[in-house]
Formats: sequence, structure tokens, C-alpha cells
Amino acid sequence: MAGILKFSGLLGFSSGREESLKRAARRDAAKAIGLCRALLSEGGEAAGTRLAGEALHLYESFQSSARDAFFDLLAEDFSPNPQKILEAADAYRKDMGPRNLQRLERAVEAPRQELFRRLNTVPGGTRSLVHMRAAMLSTLAQNAHWEPIASDLSHLLTSWFNRGFLVLQRIDWHTPAVILEKLIEYEAVHQIQGWPDLRRRLERDRRCYGFFHPALPDEPLIFIEVALTRGMSSQVQPLLDPQASVTDPASADHAMFYSITNCQEGLRGVAFGSFLIKQVVEDLRGSFPRLRRFATVSPVPRFRKWLAANLGTLESLPKFADLVRLAPRLEEAAWFKNEEHCAELRNLLIPLCAYYLLHARHEAEPLDPVARFHLKNGASLERINWLGDTSITGRERSAGLMTNYVYRLSDVEGNHERYVRDHEIAASHEVKALAKRVTSGAKAAGVRPPG
Amino acid sequence: MAGILKFSGLLGFSSGREESLKRAARRDAAKAIGLCRALLSEGGEAAGTRLAGEALHLYESFQSSARDAFFDLLAEDFSPNPQKILEAADAYRKDMGPRNLQRLERAVEAPRQELFRRLNTVPGGTRSLVHMRAAMLSTLAQNAHWEPIASDLSHLLTSWFNRGFLVLQRIDWHTPAVILEKLIEYEAVHQIQGWPDLRRRLERDRRCYGFFHPALPDEPLIFIEVALTRGMSSQVQPLLDPQASVTDPASADHAMFYSITNCQEGLRGVAFGSFLIKQVVEDLRGSFPRLRRFATVSPVPRFRKWLAANLGTLESLPKFADLVRLAPRLEEAAWFKNEEHCAELRNLLIPLCAYYLLHARHEAEPLDPVARFHLKNGASLERINWLGDTSITGRERSAGLMTNYVYRLSDVEGNHERYVRDHEIAASHEVKALAKRVTSGAKAAGVRPPG
Amino acid sequence: MAGILKFSGLLGFSSGREESLKRAARRDAAKAIGLCRALLSEGGEAAGTRLAGEALHLYESFQSSARDAFFDLLAEDFSPNPQKILEAADAYRKDMGPRNLQRLERAVEAPRQELFRRLNTVPGGTRSLVHMRAAMLSTLAQNAHWEPIASDLSHLLTSWFNRGFLVLQRIDWHTPAVILEKLIEYEAVHQIQGWPDLRRRLERDRRCYGFFHPALPDEPLIFIEVALTRGMSSQVQPLLDPQASVTDPASADHAMFYSITNCQEGLRGVAFGSFLIKQVVEDLRGSFPRLRRFATVSPVPRFRKWLAANLGTLESLPKFADLVRLAPRLEEAAWFKNEEHCAELRNLLIPLCAYYLLHARHEAEPLDPVARFHLKNGASLERINWLGDTSITGRERSAGLMTNYVYRLSDVEGNHERYVRDHEIAASHEVKALAKRVTSGAKAAGVRPPG
Amino acid sequence: MAGILKFSGLLGFSSGREESLKRAARRDAAKAIGLCRALLSEGGEAAGTRLAGEALHLYESFQSSARDAFFDLLAEDFSPNPQKILEAADAYRKDMGPRNLQRLERAVEAPRQELFRRLNTVPGGTRSLVHMRAAMLSTLAQNAHWEPIASDLSHLLTSWFNRGFLVLQRIDWHTPAVILEKLIEYEAVHQIQGWPDLRRRLERDRRCYGFFHPALPDEPLIFIEVALTRGMSSQVQPLLDPQASVTDPASADHAMFYSITNCQEGLRGVAFGSFLIKQVVEDLRGSFPRLRRFATVSPVPRFRKWLAANLGTLESLPKFADLVRLAPRLEEAAWFKNEEHCAELRNLLIPLCAYYLLHARHEAEPLDPVARFHLKNGASLERINWLGDTSITGRERSAGLMTNYVYRLSDVEGNHERYVRDHEIAASHEVKALAKRVTSGAKAAGVRPPG
Repeated sequence: MAGILKFSGLLGFSSGREESLKRAARRDAAKAIGLCRALLSEGGEAAGTRLAGEALHLYESFQSSARDAFFDLLAEDFSPNPQKILEAADAYRKDMGPRNLQRLERAVEAPRQELFRRLNTVPGGTRSLVHMRAAMLSTLAQNAHWEPIASDLSHLLTSWFNRGFLVLQRIDWHTPAVILEKLIEYEAVHQIQGWPDLRRRLERDRRCYGFFHPALPDEPLIFIEVALTRGMSSQVQPLLDPQASVTDPASADHAMFYSITNCQEGLRGVAFGSFLIKQVVEDLRGSFPRLRRFATVSPVPRFRKWLAANLGTLESLPKFADLVRLAPRLEEAAWFKNEEHCAELRNLLIPLCAYYLLHARHEAEPLDPVARFHLKNGASLERINWLGDTSITGRERSAGLMTNYVYRLSDVEGNHERYVRDHEIAASHEVKALAKRVTSGAKAAGVRPPG
Repeated sequence: MAGILKFSGLLGFSSGREESLKRAARRDAAKAIGLCRALLSEGGEAAGTRLAGEALHLYESFQSSARDAFFDLLAEDFSPNPQKILEAADAYRKDMGPRNLQRLERAVEAPRQELFRRLNTVPGGTRSLVHMRAAMLSTLAQNAHWEPIASDLSHLLTSWFNRGFLVLQRIDWHTPAVILEKLIEYEAVHQIQGWPDLRRRLERDRRCYGFFHPALPDEPLIFIEVALTRGMSSQVQPLLDPQASVTDPASADHAMFYSITNCQEGLRGVAFGSFLIKQVVEDLRGSFPRLRRFATVSPVPRFRKWLAANLGTLESLPKFADLVRLAPRLEEAAWFKNEEHCAELRNLLIPLCAYYLLHARHEAEPLDPVARFHLKNGASLERINWLGDTSITGRERSAGLMTNYVYRLSDVEGNHERYVRDHEIAASHEVKALAKRVTSGAKAAGVRPPG
Repeated sequence: MAGILKFSGLLGFSSGREESLKRAARRDAAKAIGLCRALLSEGGEAAGTRLAGEALHLYESFQSSARDAFFDLLAEDFSPNPQKILEAADAYRKDMGPRNLQRLERAVEAPRQELFRRLNTVPGGTRSLVHMRAAMLSTLAQNAHWEPIASDLSHLLTSWFNRGFLVLQRIDWHTPAVILEKLIEYEAVHQIQGWPDLRRRLERDRRCYGFFHPALPDEPLIFIEVALTRGMSSQVQPLLDPQASVTDPASADHAMFYSITNCQEGLRGVAFGSFLIKQVVEDLRGSFPRLRRFATVSPVPRFRKWLAANLGTLESLPKFADLVRLAPRLEEAAWFKNEEHCAELRNLLIPLCAYYLLHARHEAEPLDPVARFHLKNGASLERINWLGDTSITGRERSAGLMTNYVYRLSDVEGNHERYVRDHEIAASHEVKALAKRVTSGAKAAGVRPPG
Repeated sequence: MAGILKFSGLLGFSSGREESLKRAARRDAAKAIGLCRALLSEGGEAAGTRLAGEALHLYESFQSSARDAFFDLLAEDFSPNPQKILEAADAYRKDMGPRNLQRLERAVEAPRQELFRRLNTVPGGTRSLVHMRAAMLSTLAQNAHWEPIASDLSHLLTSWFNRGFLVLQRIDWHTPAVILEKLIEYEAVHQIQGWPDLRRRLERDRRCYGFFHPALPDEPLIFIEVALTRGMSSQVQPLLDPQASVTDPASADHAMFYSITNCQEGLRGVAFGSFLIKQVVEDLRGSFPRLRRFATVSPVPRFRKWLAANLGTLESLPKFADLVRLAPRLEEAAWFKNEEHCAELRNLLIPLCAYYLLHARHEAEPLDPVARFHLKNGASLERINWLGDTSITGRERSAGLMTNYVYRLSDVEGNHERYVRDHEIAASHEVKALAKRVTSGAKAAGVRPPG
């Protein structure tokens, strides 16, 4: 009994305290919303930048509870007026002239959009709004009623971060530290192990470029890392080695794109990558006329998952019967150092990966997200490399394989168009031939190949 | 008969040639529109910047006939689909949830907006779109069917030229010539008579600031000219004199804003002025702590017109009976040099001008556009100056009068709010007392004062 | 008598006033010299920048009389101590070791040099010293006792304005006006007629480059003007025409250097020109790979003078007997528009000019200063152009002729070496053949050719 | 015998190989010297920058043996001609006019100086010469015959790195990494432990400034680190703590200079420190008007050495008899953590340090190099802090003591002058009173105090 009393006492205390914190959070959120309302009122125009500054300053001080309350209020308030929408729709139905169309347009646009435009007028406003969307997206799954706010922000940010406003900048050892530390923070594909690692990636046989927006001068939006090499790299570890000796970039004939990183969670869905790759190709061609190929060293991040899910079907194919016996080896820590295992696995995995990349689809598009990105950009799948990435991540996701996608400027538009129109994948003869081993095997076995 | 035949022959020839030119123009316009369509198609994404570049390049080569044809096609095409709008409106009427709202939003947004966003992706795209709107506005009165295009462009440009993206820059003799020549070209209030005049306006007892957008680095969007003076200037000519000796700005106690110029016709309606004035006040306060007043020397550009229109009513007021006799003198070339005439006119015109500024309204707002601008910004009407601008324009529009509007940072928000809410005009006792001479005269005479 | 008395009275007054002004000037000069002495004293080090600033500020306020007095005092004072020099020389004679050499070095260096180094420590110091030397050079002929000061300044400035510290900058319409107005001010070869003329010279088929020193960021030290043309220009007027239509620089095959201007009188004798031309050639080659020749369009500024002085000898040569008859025509205002006169003059003057450029010497070097400059730089004399410069100056000095010197990078070092070692002039066959007409004529006539 | 043979064989081999390496080194050195000679020859002027570039490129490839050989040849050659010096001295003795003085000046100036000026004309030349002097200084003690070269270089570099050409730059987290890594490399007073430590030192409650020369844009010449604090810091460890929380700089009343580092060994003897401190004080005063004192936290690096050398004398003083017993404790690793020991030591060491700083001299100047630097700059010795630096270095050199020198702008010039003229040391009453305990003790004991 005493224990229970105590417990409920604790609960009571706790919930009392929690309640009071929640109240404070709601109060803060309400105060910020009050400023937002004043900012949108006509009389508040002269006080606009002051009000916007205060509202954002307050918002930035919020813990998650106040922020959630603020988003809740933003979702309730600042939405379009349904009555006005219906009236405008009626008017439009009667007369579909431009005046009524405009009336309807205005009626459906959430006042929230104008609110965000006014919040943007203060220094640092754009950054705050980008961060606001990031915060929202992080718990959107649990707060479906925020969708309209996220959508309004998305609409604005897509317009504001239009390619025409972005600036391509080369990033090297002359770049301010405040930007360089962001690379270390954001790089997710092949993590940067501190400043010496970063320094090596910015040597003269490497190139790094980023897109920047004038309103966020210290923040790369996306950046890409390139190695200038002789020959097309089949493995990523040598490119990442901080001790690798620096070579003369003038003698390179390949530009290998080995990492591309989107930096701003708040700009998720705003597509920069395709623009960036193409402009970097242009820039490199100008600087190094000897470069004759622009290619990626890319992971195949869903391959292992797909393999596991389709093991049953695959082992029924004539040439892949050993798969069930061999696949568990991939779980071993050092399988890739065992030459015998490697030889056996290689013969199975490379054709399977080719098949996976060309045929495993989700609603007509390739299952593999990296393939989707480069193929949609107009690149061509050139080669699959054995032991291309022997890092833990590389083994866990891609079975250690790495692919090369090639960007041939003359083919990019055609490849893209065929991809978008017919979901046709541009690939080398070699890769196609590898994939055929699986499909012909399936045909021979009378088995429906895995999808 | 012969004559008539000949004439119709000429006409035939002329109209034949004209017709063929028109056909060519339509062909060119159609070609550009074709590129625009390809640009909007999904398959054209990889070719996006190429297509956008070609479309804009073609557009920029257009003479007015092709441009008009292009706008006509833009208006026909790229508009929202009425059927889809009606369906979306119906769906929304049944269920007003966010999904249906978003569907309706998308249905009403003209594809033209996405087209403009894609055209903007190429270098120089923003500039082209700003110029496109300028070209459109110049003949919009004759082409009402372009309204929706102009409105779509306006919507985008307002969003893109948000205050948060503008950069305040001081303009002085260290500024690149490519920008300085724009000042000479654009300044309309008090024209700049070539480079020596410009140079004087950029000396150390003058300040010039402009707003710039990162996508148009060589183009001021708006600029303001300031003189640092001792005392509040009552006349503009001394400020404009290229021979005026340069004074020490550190000893100034007034900052006189004597000209503010919007430069981009294509951004008409995007309001920069209020932001600019306030930020310039902030900047000057930081640089010159001795400044104790920030004021304008402004024209009263509709005063003469109003005076002419209300002459009948005004002469019936007791103290203004001489008006009909004296008013024609304003037509004389050198009236302002005639001391006797001046003395008589001054006594009549200054109170009338005070009355005009405080009471002459159009739908609750002041008739005078300059008054509207500064009063809405939160300034206060401080003083009316006799022979403040003796230039031809100054005499023709403002009867040579100049006003001082004062920006007191502590009052700006309150003034603005009262103006917007109650149409109340902030003015000095002196100006109010002057205006009262007219209203009390009217009351005494039992006359309805002019409005 | 009274008149005479009065007159002498006036004189007395005048000379009294003059005397008092002179005294004031001497007082000011002495005060500045006092500051200089304090600046050089050991105890004044902490006060160094203050003292240097005060001294230069005072100096800059000087009228010519105070400045002359200041230079006089600088010449008297701050010179090396002869006694110490002699003692150091004696010590060196006994023991020529490094210690005694250094002692002698220090004894001969004027303390003035250290003074100038300390004056240079303040902002604007370098500019002041450059101007100081300019002022000194302007009246050095009348003040031979200033020679040592001028020489000390020259020594320092030559060291400070070493090529390694200069920055090559392209000058175009994006250059700040404060620099552009200096071009208008300084250009002496082909004067710039205001801003529109300047603007044409900076269009995209023209190039302008200057050397700048970081301590004088707004001051070009020297600048060169280049036209990108098809074919080698034979005349300068078309290049100078502000109305000339702008051509596509990418199609040019010649870079014509039509003007080179030293800007700082205070840096007279510090040679920048040769460095500038070579670096501009490098830069242009990089930007325009189609350029196949880099040449000048240059005047022959001493030709007319030489012609007049050698008329007697020249007319005794067989082919030049008409010279005395024809030469006076050059005095006529519009001779160059008279086709008949031109035909006759051309046949005489072009060979004579070729002879003049190749053979008229002053102590082994060419008499013509422009020839001296380009030939010493390693250029080759390529062509002499009839009516190449029909401006007044062009006719008065060069008889309207213009030369092309060509800079072939592969020949420049060899040409220079042969010029410096053997005074050999690099010239085309054509020019040599023209000159031979005069020398063979002289030989035939048994006349000593003019020198 | 066999062993001996073998040995001598080895020796022979070794010395043979060594000999051949030496020959190669001499050959390389001779080649570089040949380029230098060509560079100085008159005919080589047009080839100047090419020759200079080749010579420096070759020099930079040298190992120490070739470099030494190069310096040897530089010392032999490129020296003034003694015969010409003697003749010029004789001429001067007969006629001490300016012409003969100039002749003597030219005769004593080593052609080496002109050589260095010409080497400087190529990009990177200045940097090469600075590094050349650094290399020379590092082994100058063993190569006294290089003294004249080092002296010539010193003369030139002092002139080229004149304060007037230096640029003060604030260094913070926006500074390019290429510069920041130099701070980590060079900081010697309080070593920087990697990038996180550096980042803390560049936070907003810290300031870092450096002098830069335009010809070495990526190289700080000297930099200073400042902490903005409340109150005058008595200990350096809290300032160095990377975990210390960041405070609001606007609330600081003291600027504490805790480290100043000369970066370029090749510029040893060129004094930047005094200029830097004064300009930083100016800059900070402008940015933070609340700062009321500018002071250092400085070590006393020779104190322990002096203490050890004078132990005998000191213990004979009445109040310092315990010294011999207590001094050895300073050798213990953690004495400063022992409160009892500290209490005893403190009473002895603080007065002794005050005495040491005020009275221990070397040729009239303070023995302590840090005291010499700040006192000569015009600072005043304000306070001696117990356990001001408990690092190993701090204990080993300064017995853990730290001093505060204060820079009062109004006193700096006077302090400096008295210091230079009379070797008078500016110090607070407190410090003087502490020192008096030692002097009066010595007088009382009839002992000559240590010097």
C-alpha cells in the first residue's frame, strides 16, 4: 500500500510538474503565435521585421514540447477559410474567367505561406525556416495534422532554393573552417575521420564542390567529392585512404565521384544532385581537358536485403544452387579476406547484383535508391566491382560490391528520357550479359525470376 | 480610279509583307513555346537547363510582334485545367480534409508558374523573367488577356525578391562603373547630369544605398540618395548642385533623403522602399551618432492638378478669393524670381498645400502619392517649404513646394498603425495649423471644402 | 619722385609680405623636420606611427615654398656623416673582413632612408612618399642639391615596387569608378575623351590591364590598352573611334597594343612596362587561343625632329632630292587629305623612317624612345604604316606614320640579348629593305649618311 | 686483417658514395649559381622572370648539402669588389660631394642584393627568400662566412616587410583552414591541441589577430591571442581550457593578451609585435567600448634559471634563509598541489620574482626576455600571480608564476621613452614594494644583491 501510495504520489508529482511544463510550453507557443498574427495583420507592416525577429527568436528558444505546441497552433490557425474557398469555387463554376480563378487561387493559399514569407524578411530568417521544416519532418509521422504546414514550407523552399539562385563553389583547404566542419558533420556515405582525413580529401588530386544559397553562406546544401585518377576506380578504400600519396591531377584521365551528400534535412525533397553532378562535370572538363570519363564509385545499398528476401527463388536457378550454402558466409567478419570463399561468392554475387540492378523494381523503378538516382539523372550502369567497398557498411548493405555509373554528356538526355518514359535502364553490354545469366537460368528452370 | 488601284496595290503589298512578318513572328513564338512545353514535360528534366537556356535565348531575340505572339500563346496555354479545378472543388466540398485542399491548390496553380521556375534555373534566368514582366506591363493595358501571366510572374517575383534575400549595399565612387551608370540611367526624381554630377552625389557628405539581389549583381533594384547636412534642408537645389563644396559629414546633424528610385519596371508592385529607408536610417545612426533627425525633401507631385480642379471651390473661401487672379501666374516662366508675386502666392499656396496633404483623399488615402508612401511607412509630415524645388518639374507639379517628412524610429510603428487602421495622418502642429486656415474658412463661408 | 617713392614703398610692402610668408614656410618646414628627427630617435619608437602620421600630415599641407624648404632641410640633415665614412673606409682598408664591410655599408647609408622607412609605416605613407618624389622631380633641375634625397627615395621605391609585389588586374566596366577616372586622367598617348570614350575602350573586343601595388589599391601604376582585331592594325584612329562597332573577340587573330601609360610620376625610372607586356601576352594567350600575333601600333615621336635636323644631308642623296621641296608640305594642316601630296611624300618618308629607326642612334641606342623601349623588351620592328596616326600629335611628331612592333615570345629573349650586347635591332626584311634604299643611296652619292 | 680491409672497404665505399653525393650537390649548387649569374647579367633581363623561376625552383629542390654548397657559392660570389670600394673611398676622401658618395654607396652594396630583388620578381619569390633566410639562420652558427648573405637578406626583408605593407586581419572560424592550420603549427607559448582546442580559442569571447603580407597571403607573420574577460586574469589555464563555457564578450571589461607568436623564422629580427599589440588595442576599443584595461598574462621564462644561479646570495638575505631548503621542492612533480608547500614558497618566490624583474639586468636591460619585450613596448608591470601557469613549462621556467603587463595607451609613449633613455621600468606600487623586501633585506644584511 505504502509503495502504491508513494508511486501514485510520485506520479501525481511527476504529472503535476509535467503538466506545468506543458502549460508553460503552450503559453510560449501561444505567445509566438500571437506575434505571428500581429505580423500578418495589416497594421503590423511597419513593425514587420521587428515582429518577425521576435517570433523567430522565441521559436528558436523552444524545447520540443513548445515547438510541438507551436506547430499544433500553426496547423489550426493560418489555414485557408473553407467558406471562402467554397464561395470562390461557386463563383468560378459560374464564370471561369481569370478574375474568379484568381479569387479561387487566393482562397486556397494558406495565410501560412504569407506568414513564412514575412518571417523570412529578417536576417537569418531563411535558415530558421529551413530548420523549422527539419524539426517538423523529424516527427511528422506522429503528427499527420502538420502535413499542410510541411507542404506549405516545402512549396516555398522549393521556389526559393531554385537552381537559378544556387552558387557552385569549389571547397578546398582555402575554404573557411566554418564550412569545412560541416563536411565532417554531414558526410554520411563515407564518414570523414577528422581534420587530417578531410585535408586529404581536399588535396590537389581530389575535388570537392558544393551548392550554396546566398542567404545561408556558411551552409553547404549539398556537396560532392571527386577523385582524379588514372583509370576507372573499382574500389573506394584506396580513394578514402588518408595516407594515400597525392598524384598529379594533370595526368588523370578519370574523374571518380565517390560521395554525394545532401546536407539540409529541412530541404529534403528539393532536388540538387542532378544539377550538381552536371555542373561539376562541366567545370572539371574545363580545368582538365585530359579527363575522358566521369564516373561514380557507388554502393548497392539494398542488395543484401533483396538477396535475403529472394534466397528461396534464387537457389532454384541452375547456376545458383550453392547460394544457400554460401550466403551465410557473408555474415562472417572477415569473409572478404578468405580467397577461397571470395572466389566462390564472386561468381554468384556479381551476376545476381547485375540482375538486381536491372530487374528488381518497385513500381517500375529500380529497387535500389542509388541506381534510381543516377539512372534517372541519365547515367549508365557500367561495371560491378568485386570487393569495391570492404567497410562494415559496404559489406552489410552491398555485400562489398561497388558499381560504376558513367556520365556521358552526349547520352545523358537520351538516357534520362528513356528512363522516365519507358523505365529503360542504360547499361553496358557487360552488365547486361551478367544479368542474362540469371534470367536465362530462370527460363531454363521454368522459374519466375525474383522481382 | 488609278489612284485607288494604286493605293490598294500598295496596301496589298504592305499588308502582304506585314502578314509575312507576322507569320514569322508567330512561328518564332511557337518555337519558343514548343521549348517551354518540352521543358515542362517529365522526360525533359535532364535537358532542363539546356531547354530553358534555348527558350530564353530565343525569347530575348524577339521583336515586339514575336513577343506579343509569345505572350498570347503563354496566356492560352499553361493555364490551369478548368475541368480539374471543378472536380477538385467538388471533392473538397464533400471532404474538406487536407488532401483535398492540396488537390485543389494544385489544380488552381497555373503550370506557367512551374514553367517560370524552370526557366529561372539557367544563368541570367531571373533577369530575363524580370525583363519579361516589364515588357508585359508596358502593353498590358492593350492586352488584358495577359493579366493571368503577369499575375503569375508577380506572385513568383514577390516571393523571390523577398526582403530576406536582398542585400543592402552602399554605393560610392568605389562602386563598379557598370552599377554607377545604372544610377544615371534610372534616377528619375532629380535626373543625374552625367558623371561629374554623379560623382558629387557620392562625395563624403552624401550617401547612396541600394538593394541588390544576388541573382542580379549588377542591377540595383532601388536606390536612395541622402545628404548629410546641418539643419533640415528646405530646398533641393543646393543639394543637387554639382559645384557645392563638400562638407565634413561628422558635423552633420540631419540626414536628408532627397531621392528614392525604383529601378526595375519588372518588379513594379514589389515593395522595397519602406525596408530600404529603415535600414539606411539604422546604418547612418551607427556611422554618425550626431545625426538627430532623418527627414526627406519631397515633392508634392499632384498638387497643381488638384489646385486646378478645385479652383472654383477654393476661391469661394474668404481668405482665398485672390486665387483665381493669382493662380495663372504659376504658368509664367519665371514667377518664382518675382519677389512680389512670390509674397502673394506664398500666403495662399502654403496653407492650401497643407490642406491638400491632410485632407485631399482618394478612398480614404491621401491623393498625393508621395505623401501616401511616406505616411504609410510611418513618417510624419513636418514642414512645407516655399520654393523648395524651382526646377521645371518642381514648378509644374508641386508649384515649387517641397515637403519634409520625418522618420522618427520611435514613432514609425505607431504612425503606420494609425494610418493603416484609421487613415490618420501624422503631422506637425505647424502643418495642421496651416490646413486649419482652409477648413475654418470653408466653415465660415458655409462651403463644403474640396476633397 | 612721389611716384617712385610710392612704387618702392609698394615693393617694400610686397617683399615684406613675401618675406613673412617665406618665414612661415621655413617655420613649418622646420616643424616637420623636427618630427622627423624625433621619429628617427631611439626614444621615439613607441610614438613612431603617431610621429610619422603627424609629419606626413603636416607635409601634405605644404604649399610649394614650405615644401622646398622641407626638401632643403632634408638635404642638409639626414645625410651620412663624412667623418664616420672615412673612419669606416680606413678600417676596411686595413681589414677587408665582413665586419668592416658592414660598418662601411652602414656609414654610407643616409639616415634619410631609415626616415623614409619609418614614414612608410603609417596608412597612406607609401602614397605620400611616391607623391613626395614626384614633387621633388618636378623642380629637381633647379635644385641639384636635392639629388641625394631623390636618389634615396628612388632606391627605396624601386625595392618596394618590385615586380614580385605588383598585382596584374584586368580593368573593365566592372572596375570601380575611382580607378577608371585615373585612366581618363593619366592616358597621355591617345587621350580619353570622357566616360563614353572610356567605356568603348573597355568593351569586349578591347582589353585593359594595369599593375597595382597593395599599398595603393586605387592607383594604377601603369596600364596598357589592347584591341583584339582581325589582321594587324595599320592605323590607330579606327581603334580609338568611340562609335566603332564592337566585334566578337573570339574571332580575333591579333592583339594590338595601342597605348601604354605610366601613371605615377613619383615612380619614374622604376620599369614596369616590359613585365606588363609579357604578362598580358600570357594572359591573352590563355583566354584567346586563336590569337596568333601580339603587336603594337606605335608612334615614331622623334622622326620629324630628326628629319628637320638632317634635311641637308638627306637631300643630297639621289632618290631624296625632292625632300626639300616636299618636306614643307608636312606643315600644312590637311596635307594628309591631299592624295597627290601623299603619294609623293609616302615614297620618301617610309624609307627614311625605316632608316631612322634602324640607324639613327644616340650612343649606340636608337634615337627614337619608343623604338628603344620595345626593341629593348625584345620586340621586332615589323612594319611602317602610312597615315597610321592622322591626329595633330601624330602628324607633328611622327609625320603621321605608325609602326608595328611584334612580340614573338620565342624570340623575345634572343632579341633582347642581341640588342643589349650588340645593339642589334630585330626587324623584318621589309623594313630592312626600305632602310637600304637610304644607305645604298648615300654610298652611291659618296655621302656620309645622317646619324 | 680481413676485418680491417673490409672496414676500410666499407669506409671507402661509404666515403666514395658520400663523395659522389657531395659532388652532385656541388654540381646542383653550381648550376643554380649559374642561373643567378645569368639573371644578374644585363643581357638576361628579358629572360629575367624565367631565370629567376628556374633558379628558385632548383634551389627549392635542394637537400641540405646542396643548399649549403649554394650558400657557400653565394658567399664567395656576389660580394662587393674590394678594389672598387677602395677606389671609391679614395675618390670620396678627395671630394666628399654627392656623386662620390653615391659611387661609394654602390661599391659597397653587394650585387647579392640586386640578385635577391630579381629572384623576388617571380610568383612565390618572396616566400622562397623568407624560407632561404630561415634555412641559413638554422646553421649560421656553424657557417659564420654566410653572415654577409644573411645580413643582405635581412636588410631587404626588413624593408619589404615594413609595417606600412602589412595587413591586420582578424582570425576566426571563418578564416580559411590553410591559415588556421598554421596557428596550430606555430603557436609555441601555449600549444594548440588540435582543431577543437583551436576552435575554442576563436569563439566570440576570444579574439585572434595576425599581420599578413600581400605576397604571402596564406602565412600569418605574427599572431596574438586575446581573451575578453571580466577582471584581470591571474591564471592562464582557465583561458586555455577547451571546455570553458563561452561568455558574452559585450560584458567583458578586460582584454587579456595571453599569447603572441612570431611565425616566420626567416623574418627573425623584423619587429612586428609592438605594432600588432597597439593596433589590436585600437581595434578592440572600437568594438568593445566597455573594455577598461588591456593586459597580458605572461610567463617569466628565465626566473628559475636566475634563481638557481643566485641561490647562494639570496639565502644570505634575512627573510630568504629558507630558500635553500624550499627551492628543491620546485623539482617535485606536484608541489603546486601541496597547499602547505605552496604557502611557504609563495612568500619567498613572489618578492624574489618582483626583484628579478625589476633589478636582474643584462647590460642595463632586464634579463627576462618577456619583460624586455613588453617594457620596451611601453607596458607597465602590474602584478605577479601565484600559480599563474601550472603547466610543466610554466613550472620549469617560471616557477608557475605569471605576470600581468598593462598597456595604457596614454602611458605607452612615456614608458617607452624612459625605458629606452634611462632603462627605467614602469611598475605598479605593489610590485615595487615586493621587490623592496629583497633590496632592503640585502642592505640590512650588508650583502650585494644579485644581478
